[in-house]
Amino acid sequence: MNQIILLMYCADQKGIIAAVTNFIHHNQGNITYIDQYVDRPNAAFFMRVECDLNSESFKIEDFKSNFSNEIGERYAMHCDFYLKNHKPKMAVFVSKYDHCLYDILAKQQSGELAAEIPFILSNHADLKIIADRFEIPFHHIFVSRENKEEAEEKQAKLLKAHGVDFIVLARYMQIVSSKLIDQYKHKIINIHHSFLPAFPGAKPYHSAFDRGVKIIGATSHYVTEELDAGPIIEQDTTRVTHLNSIADFIEKGRDLERIVLVRALKQHVNRKVMVYGNKTVVFS
Amino acid sequence: MNQIILLMYCADQKGIIAAVTNFIHHNQGNITYIDQYVDRPNAAFFMRVECDLNSESFKIEDFKSNFSNEIGERYAMHCDFYLKNHKPKMAVFVSKYDHCLYDILAKQQSGELAAEIPFILSNHADLKIIADRFEIPFHHIFVSRENKEEAEEKQAKLLKAHGVDFIVLARYMQIVSSKLIDQYKHKIINIHHSFLPAFPGAKPYHSAFDRGVKIIGATSHYVTEELDAGPIIEQDTTRVTHLNSIADFIEKGRDLERIVLVRALKQHVNRKVMVYGNKTVVFS
Amino acid sequence: MNQIILLMYCADQKGIIAAVTNFIHHNQGNITYIDQYVDRPNAAFFMRVECDLNSESFKIEDFKSNFSNEIGERYAMHCDFYLKNHKPKMAVFVSKYDHCLYDILAKQQSGELAAEIPFILSNHADLKIIADRFEIPFHHIFVSRENKEEAEEKQAKLLKAHGVDFIVLARYMQIVSSKLIDQYKHKIINIHHSFLPAFPGAKPYHSAFDRGVKIIGATSHYVTEELDAGPIIEQDTTRVTHLNSIADFIEKGRDLERIVLVRALKQHVNRKVMVYGNKTVVFS
Amino acid sequence: MNQIILLMYCADQKGIIAAVTNFIHHNQGNITYIDQYVDRPNAAFFMRVECDLNSESFKIEDFKSNFSNEIGERYAMHCDFYLKNHKPKMAVFVSKYDHCLYDILAKQQSGELAAEIPFILSNHADLKIIADRFEIPFHHIFVSRENKEEAEEKQAKLLKAHGVDFIVLARYMQIVSSKLIDQYKHKIINIHHSFLPAFPGAKPYHSAFDRGVKIIGATSHYVTEELDAGPIIEQDTTRVTHLNSIADFIEKGRDLERIVLVRALKQHVNRKVMVYGNKTVVFS
Repeated sequence: MNQIILLMYCADQKGIIAAVTNFIHHNQGNITYIDQYVDRPNAAFFMRVECDLNSESFKIEDFKSNFSNEIGERYAMHCDFYLKNHKPKMAVFVSKYDHCLYDILAKQQSGELAAEIPFILSNHADLKIIADRFEIPFHHIFVSRENKEEAEEKQAKLLKAHGVDFIVLARYMQIVSSKLIDQYKHKIINIHHSFLPAFPGAKPYHSAFDRGVKIIGATSHYVTEELDAGPIIEQDTTRVTHLNSIADFIEKGRDLERIVLVRALKQHVNRKVMVYGNKTVVFS
Repeated sequence: MNQIILLMYCADQKGIIAAVTNFIHHNQGNITYIDQYVDRPNAAFFMRVECDLNSESFKIEDFKSNFSNEIGERYAMHCDFYLKNHKPKMAVFVSKYDHCLYDILAKQQSGELAAEIPFILSNHADLKIIADRFEIPFHHIFVSRENKEEAEEKQAKLLKAHGVDFIVLARYMQIVSSKLIDQYKHKIINIHHSFLPAFPGAKPYHSAFDRGVKIIGATSHYVTEELDAGPIIEQDTTRVTHLNSIADFIEKGRDLERIVLVRALKQHVNRKVMVYGNKTVVFS
Repeated sequence: MNQIILLMYCADQKGIIAAVTNFIHHNQGNITYIDQYVDRPNAAFFMRVECDLNSESFKIEDFKSNFSNEIGERYAMHCDFYLKNHKPKMAVFVSKYDHCLYDILAKQQSGELAAEIPFILSNHADLKIIADRFEIPFHHIFVSRENKEEAEEKQAKLLKAHGVDFIVLARYMQIVSSKLIDQYKHKIINIHHSFLPAFPGAKPYHSAFDRGVKIIGATSHYVTEELDAGPIIEQDTTRVTHLNSIADFIEKGRDLERIVLVRALKQHVNRKVMVYGNKTVVFS
Repeated sequence: MNQIILLMYCADQKGIIAAVTNFIHHNQGNITYIDQYVDRPNAAFFMRVECDLNSESFKIEDFKSNFSNEIGERYAMHCDFYLKNHKPKMAVFVSKYDHCLYDILAKQQSGELAAEIPFILSNHADLKIIADRFEIPFHHIFVSRENKEEAEEKQAKLLKAHGVDFIVLARYMQIVSSKLIDQYKHKIINIHHSFLPAFPGAKPYHSAFDRGVKIIGATSHYVTEELDAGPIIEQDTTRVTHLNSIADFIEKGRDLERIVLVRALKQHVNRKVMVYGNKTVVFS
């Protein structure tokens, strides 16, 4: 059985839902999930559909071209098609912190996070031991101010060689280049250790501590040109008190970071996220 | 313009979504919201649709009978139809606690809670002053073991006279009769001051305190024959510590109670809740 | 019986706790609560003590001067003394929003918020009806660009005439003058409708919506010269999704605002809050 | 420098705090943390003190016997003394689930959880691979109805041989014997996958799903004779909706379980927890 996921986007118009559901019905599809959202101020329509296509002769390419002819053109609709059982390839970039990496690997291994991990890449060698424990290839690409361009070329080659679909920055402590961001538009997922837009940039726990906040947060977002300003996928917060030192903020924050990041990764991997403008629609 | 809400329920079958969306489309309706849920183990299908029906000649009775003929019979579907701008009539039952009542009245007055309140009913006279402040009729019907039946008859008359659609028990400290429950099936909403199914019955904060829990909760549910065991609409929790006395539990709990109850009321009033078995589907 | 609360602050030194507890013991006091906090990086010591003083001849003035002689001078300690059963006088400033006002009045009336409310002051007449309902004097002082100074003089007179101890800005939509801030240093409590330091200033829900956050917040803080930058007393957050409009943000936010504000007021009224630098120590 | 932690418990009496702080002061100790709690209904007094003892001639045994003579007897006080830099030995019992184990090992390795782990014990061989990855001895002791007594003897020998201080049941799917519970009274920490007292016993996620709750929880508690009824150390909750299957409950619950368990372990290891009656005092 073929299970496919459709992510649709177009200007809001009458009759779209009927047209799409009809199309699927007439193509021997059974809708198992439908959720839609209309951004009224901008008159934008978003829909996520899952359907089973049982015909033995089903070919996704035919389905796509039929859809494009019958629906896509008529409604000036953009639609992405995914096979539900296809696992995307996720490259994991890390530096020295291991807490997000452990969670990603444990959840990938248990099947909870339905992605393949062709390799882990780091600008430091420290976490190789963890990669080894999980038997995942580890590439140490040292990055300095001088060799930055060269290092990025090495990265690009690796990504290409493994056909990587998207990248997770699991507390990767380097700013990624515009070139990579362009190439992986809305396909690089970062975890920032604050409740954005509060405390962007370096050392957010220190800033939060100095400001005397009573709650700290973590934010997972797609990476865009502007630092820590890309579309937010997921956030969460936890309480702190005057008793907590900066070290406590960091320790409490770690639990937020890894949980928020993995939640965002699951949503991305499960094709639940659509980006528009600088925001996300995250279907349930 | 007519805005209607449909709440549908039937056995899961192929093509339902297409059939319904088509029907609406062919009846000059524009779907503005669609959300559906399939309970796979029980093969039960639930859907909530909002649509605008612009035709000047629109009559909800015609729409209903057409729907019944074309869809209802074919899929053995149960469907409830509501006019979106119709405000249901909500009777508020209270005893001596005022915190839930204040919130209900303030939110109803501000328009946030789209219901009419024909009257407040209490087995005590204490809260009459609040009813007066908000200029809502207040009926004091004393209830004792001896006069219980008589008191309930008075209640029933009041409910009937005002055409009450549903009842909220805003910390009403009396067990309502089977007769009333039958008459208002899944239309009596209670707030219980614990995280059900923990601590049903009387004095849940005392029980929670004795058990040494680190979190307390509140639960809003439809009233059924079995005490505190009806379908849950909404719950929330908050932290407590060893420092908190029973009085603190009660005080903290009050904020939970009123917020959880009002959330449940809004969901009910906005036709977001469907009951099946002893559970609820609460659409977003 | 006299119950007093001591809030102490000095440079961290050896033996302070023993000295203070001894002093109280030798003055026939029984400590019923002690909590202390040392800010190690700044070597600052904070302590909150509650004690019962049973001697019939107890006079707080004598106690204070003895404390000052024996402890205060020796440790260069600043100490504030409060009688536990003395209710401070709180002026409530509002504009047009009523949700925070309702909660303050309901909780003050029930005794949960142990403050007296000599009057409610507003730059609009809208909420007079609520003041009337709760039988609290209401002063409408219109404020415009032209009459600002004059209006503030009227305010100052009222505050003085009633011996107001502290002010709560319950969604008061005017910037208070430096003069008032100086006069009521760390005694003006504001509720800001965002998770500060994100979204200071006007229309934070609009900014939060535009940024596409997945969580919104509210912050209660002491008012200082710099807008929305004073010491934070209490914060809380709640989830939002892409489905929520700005109107939904505002509605959800209201519940946060009133709960966060009342929590902060209780902590202030119960003498649990100490300000140092631009932060607060909030004892449990 | 010697840093010691005192956990005190006695009937509430006047002057205790002064007496204790004086004693420490006169023994060249500097109090760096003091927190106390009085259970008024039961007139029970609890205190946790940390102090630095700088004297070169300091011996904990002398300190203890002096304390016992001067304070302990006078107030009929029970006091436990701990060296702050001493790491207790924690045996980890597991079965087949790895999520709690990963977190415990990662946090122990990073130093966040200040305990030594002499060995991991399991009734299944599945998790040996993880023990190997972290280079911690793994003992597989098969348990069946027939060999239960023999298996427990093997366990007891291991615990004794390694001088184990306390045991964590990290989703260990066996009921531990009364003998072990007696031997390790309030020293066996379990994680139960529900918000106790709701859903004790087996398959709590299934029960929660059947009841239609809107929030699930996890509870870490000391193991006592009565199943899932021991003193609660820590709890937390998370939201679920009708969309979530039992599998989703289990997946969401896992994040709760591991975080709640590790929090409880840290509190225990840092000597923050006192048990009395069937409740805990958890100092901040």
